[in-house]
Amino acid sequence: METITIKDIARALNLSTSTVSRALRNSYEINTETKKLVMEYAEKMNYRPNPIALSLRDSKSKSIGVIIPEIANNFFSQLINGIESIAYNLGYHVVIFQSHESYEREVANTNYLVSRKVDGLLVSLSSLTTNLHHFEELMEKGLPIVFFDRVPNEIETHKVVADNFFGSYEATEHLIKTGRKRIAHITSPIYLSITTERLAGYKKALEDYGIAFDESYVKYCHHGGKLASENEAAMQELLDMAEPPDAIFPASDRLTTGCLAVLQKNNIRIPDDMAIVGFTNIGVAELLNPPLTAVVQPAMEMGQQAVELLIKLIEHPKKTIEYETKSFRTSLMIRESSTGKVHA
Amino acid sequence: METITIKDIARALNLSTSTVSRALRNSYEINTETKKLVMEYAEKMNYRPNPIALSLRDSKSKSIGVIIPEIANNFFSQLINGIESIAYNLGYHVVIFQSHESYEREVANTNYLVSRKVDGLLVSLSSLTTNLHHFEELMEKGLPIVFFDRVPNEIETHKVVADNFFGSYEATEHLIKTGRKRIAHITSPIYLSITTERLAGYKKALEDYGIAFDESYVKYCHHGGKLASENEAAMQELLDMAEPPDAIFPASDRLTTGCLAVLQKNNIRIPDDMAIVGFTNIGVAELLNPPLTAVVQPAMEMGQQAVELLIKLIEHPKKTIEYETKSFRTSLMIRESSTGKVHA
Repeated sequence: METITIKDIARALNLSTSTVSRALRNSYEINTETKKLVMEYAEKMNYRPNPIALSLRDSKSKSIGVIIPEIANNFFSQLINGIESIAYNLGYHVVIFQSHESYEREVANTNYLVSRKVDGLLVSLSSLTTNLHHFEELMEKGLPIVFFDRVPNEIETHKVVADNFFGSYEATEHLIKTGRKRIAHITSPIYLSITTERLAGYKKALEDYGIAFDESYVKYCHHGGKLASENEAAMQELLDMAEPPDAIFPASDRLTTGCLAVLQKNNIRIPDDMAIVGFTNIGVAELLNPPLTAVVQPAMEMGQQAVELLIKLIEHPKKTIEYETKSFRTSLMIRESSTGKVHA
Repeated sequence: METITIKDIARALNLSTSTVSRALRNSYEINTETKKLVMEYAEKMNYRPNPIALSLRDSKSKSIGVIIPEIANNFFSQLINGIESIAYNLGYHVVIFQSHESYEREVANTNYLVSRKVDGLLVSLSSLTTNLHHFEELMEKGLPIVFFDRVPNEIETHKVVADNFFGSYEATEHLIKTGRKRIAHITSPIYLSITTERLAGYKKALEDYGIAFDESYVKYCHHGGKLASENEAAMQELLDMAEPPDAIFPASDRLTTGCLAVLQKNNIRIPDDMAIVGFTNIGVAELLNPPLTAVVQPAMEMGQQAVELLIKLIEHPKKTIEYETKSFRTSLMIRESSTGKVHA
């Protein structure tokens, strides 16, 4: 395969090689339009920096560690693709670890990554993490960490999240407006940021539409849906209620597919007997039976934003920083699982 | 959380601590029954070795690099969970990289992993890899590599594969027996092992049932379905034929969901107008519309086998080795997409 060099790009765009080189490194010295021009041309021509050469040139390892609960989850795998799309073009390797929703594994992953000298970490907390000491210690030592999705309130750094309150409010409002009265919410452990934010959006929508909040319609799954049995038990409790729900709003990817499987096994007609709206980035939502109404997060963009913030921290360690929490709007994709047959 | 130690396990099972320790390291000195007993008890009690301590004790990094085409693929994410389930219990870290079906990125990942001193590699080739020099060079230097799924014929080492010929034969036979005459096969580039094996099973089934093989019913997607446009173009060519197929057999996870999306967009009724059987480990096959008939690979077991073979190579470098290719039988899960309404 032909390889294209910085010189080729400079010649084609009529720029100096040093401008191209700095644009590709996302340098602050180059203006946004030029960077965009160079990046897009480089992408089009399949330009690839040589990360090994880059890492020999300076003392950095040119690698970023990513710790996520699990990769078999559409939201996280799309988010990782966002991270990699930026990181690779800036010459960083991305090293991926799963915590499997275990605090111990999260700690082990963190220790390992640090022992291998990564330049920074991107982390989404495991559902069983309540102690943050392993991260706090590293940040005190100067290792940049950016959190995304499941972020800790207690740690000050850049954070990238979806507007979980909004997404959840919009989903609940949609169910109310389509005539549902008893909307259940199946979610992750209460101490996760995503849980409290999504729960708050759900409650606020109920309140705004004059529906009393009933705690018995909310179920917490401590392993975030990783244990099918936990998800099934939660669903069964709801189905066994004197007044079972007429709609389910599961708060994550895995909880959504778990709930769908239980509804199918029990021959519960969707949406006639039970409407469902999932907080999920599942790729085949439209191919499901029935097509699934979903709150979708801009996972790719969230990953890109998270890695950009991290790389800024890595490359400008001495800059005074105002830490930011970047919040991304979700989209509600309305399909038949909440509305019945939709006619185009 | 309470942590359990090797001493606790030894006491509970009435074994010596050194036996427990060696059993947990999967030592050859301990018999299989004892190892099983110890491993199962350790798993039940959530025993976790300390990989950092382990790696300080000897000169190994106690880490394994895994290079796969993409993680947003049910087969690969399940396989990785198999790898991690064994590796973690034996005190190894698993470092995951995506090649994104790119030869250049596969080479960059390999170089990076080696520069970070992993003890061995588990690799499934990218769909664009035809040159194997980057792996051959490392093996000559003594780095153990085990290939899985997409394996190179040219390199001698342990390999773990599904019985792709069998899986493909069985799927094609099923379509023939349910009355299909013109069965199309959409697959990956021809130089991948999985492509030739699956193509051979498809051809043999046609031959055995007296159906002439017609090359125009076979479409190759050079990016393995990663580019939706490529998949759509292949499907469109099939649909535009004077005698379009009455069944589609896509050869991978992503090709399967891609084909389903095209069929839906074109309002083609499944299975009435077109039957479909996918070679896919998609978790929601049963929840699709209609439920999808699928050739399923034992991905978890394949991952476990691959990492066991790799760890043997790492821990017994001087042992004379007969390289093995372990082949796993697939299962055909018959659902409505190939048969119409299935009654329980």
